[in-house]
Amino acid sequence: MKVCIIGLGLIGASMAWQLKSKGHHVTGVARRQKTLDLAYEQNLIDAGYLEVCRSALQVDLVVVAVPLELIVSTIVHIDTFLSSQTLVIDVGSVKKHIIDDIKSKYLKKTLFVGGHPMAGSEKTGLENFQKDLFSGKPFILCYPSDEVRKQSTLLLQRFVADLDATVCELSAEDHDQRVAAISHLPYILANTLFNLYLKDEPSLKEVASTGFLDTTRVAHSDPLWGTMVALMNKDALIPQIDAVISSLQLLKSDISTFNSKGLLARFNVDHVIEGPEKLERLKEWVKDSPET
Amino acid sequence: MKVCIIGLGLIGASMAWQLKSKGHHVTGVARRQKTLDLAYEQNLIDAGYLEVCRSALQVDLVVVAVPLELIVSTIVHIDTFLSSQTLVIDVGSVKKHIIDDIKSKYLKKTLFVGGHPMAGSEKTGLENFQKDLFSGKPFILCYPSDEVRKQSTLLLQRFVADLDATVCELSAEDHDQRVAAISHLPYILANTLFNLYLKDEPSLKEVASTGFLDTTRVAHSDPLWGTMVALMNKDALIPQIDAVISSLQLLKSDISTFNSKGLLARFNVDHVIEGPEKLERLKEWVKDSPET
Repeated sequence: MKVCIIGLGLIGASMAWQLKSKGHHVTGVARRQKTLDLAYEQNLIDAGYLEVCRSALQVDLVVVAVPLELIVSTIVHIDTFLSSQTLVIDVGSVKKHIIDDIKSKYLKKTLFVGGHPMAGSEKTGLENFQKDLFSGKPFILCYPSDEVRKQSTLLLQRFVADLDATVCELSAEDHDQRVAAISHLPYILANTLFNLYLKDEPSLKEVASTGFLDTTRVAHSDPLWGTMVALMNKDALIPQIDAVISSLQLLKSDISTFNSKGLLARFNVDHVIEGPEKLERLKEWVKDSPET
Repeated sequence: MKVCIIGLGLIGASMAWQLKSKGHHVTGVARRQKTLDLAYEQNLIDAGYLEVCRSALQVDLVVVAVPLELIVSTIVHIDTFLSSQTLVIDVGSVKKHIIDDIKSKYLKKTLFVGGHPMAGSEKTGLENFQKDLFSGKPFILCYPSDEVRKQSTLLLQRFVADLDATVCELSAEDHDQRVAAISHLPYILANTLFNLYLKDEPSLKEVASTGFLDTTRVAHSDPLWGTMVALMNKDALIPQIDAVISSLQLLKSDISTFNSKGLLARFNVDHVIEGPEKLERLKEWVKDSPET
């Protein structure tokens, strides 16, 4: 298979390494000569270009691995250079907005499928590429139509298998809902915590332990990525933010009214309280508490 | 130094190991013979007891390493057995409530200082003890009065130094505010995310990547600990939950009004955008966006 990867950041470069190691021919497009030099040095690409052109795009599959805000404009730009057999996927973490936006451009040649590998790191850039980044991880595919699915599914199944990843086929709406819940919303909460309690309060760093660092690690993602996610995935995110606010308001009410059983049920996520021992200890404490 | 540790869970057992390795005499009190057997086997204690008694407590320092809901009742219970030279500390993650509660009991012999090592794990119990659990971590001390401070500070400084930890002296109110921000509130948010989006939706696990597992790891703490924290530290927590709700409401408003610059500023926690390049890319995207 011949693959052209546009954008050699963490995702693009890790993908290039994996595809090369499986014997595929990989062309890379990057904005800086330094990036291409490094890509050659690490043996990530067979050919490198500083901008897209007809010869860079004479491939079976183009992977648009650029930041969210550049995906649609990049695809519009390459449309004229593509041959009708070439398939295009992206790797952005929002799908409906991007697929709808591409549809609205009525492109002549682009055969587009939305892609999203569930892998990444807050450490970005080619220099942080990882050899097994996609291994064992889901690779979500969102087909814009049954017709596109028919034309592209065999090639994409091979592509995902060669990344050692697992195909997970979802509608764009389903993708956006799920990814909002497991990625975008956790990012928003980590960012909220960081802004409220760590940004300007070095005194807290003194007492912070590893748990806090884990919880806020994702807050250090690219801020432009966060902005694009919030704007592009707002239909999924706003109801989920509302659900968090409602849950916190209920929690406040349970705390204020000393609803110890309600709190225990809320925090018992793994259903670990089987015997009556802990309930008994809670009852004892409530009985002796100065508040009751 | 002779030390008695009441409660040989993760914290108590890790502390016992460290103190023994520094040559101190360590007595352990546990509710189950099995725990004492394991403690002897791992060379964590010099003597073990199934309940507190005068001979177990003939020491320089008693560390009450029992769960939050049992701290005050344990201290009330041991008061009659203590000699007047013995110092007592706890290791619970709430301080004002515990110190006030102990004061309200007018105990005869107890010389109490609030303690809180900033170390732990969601894996609890003696079997998960760690040899370097406190190493390089802050050990917070809250003295209930200047008089108690005078009587106990030398011994406690030696004790914390022998755990290879660092003394961090705070008022109980300060402790509770900071620990609410860096530990209790992150726990509450992880729990909220877990309850809303993972508990009953195995479909999300399919697409979850490592970031999500990091963010929700702390949600798996002991639910009775979570309940006690919420009830005991409510004065610090409720205003902080309010701050999170306000921040999320502002975020919703920024998303709904397409305030891209406001969002970028919010997510830019590390002030990484130095040049105008990313702002320019955002402006370009906003200009071309179907929403505007």
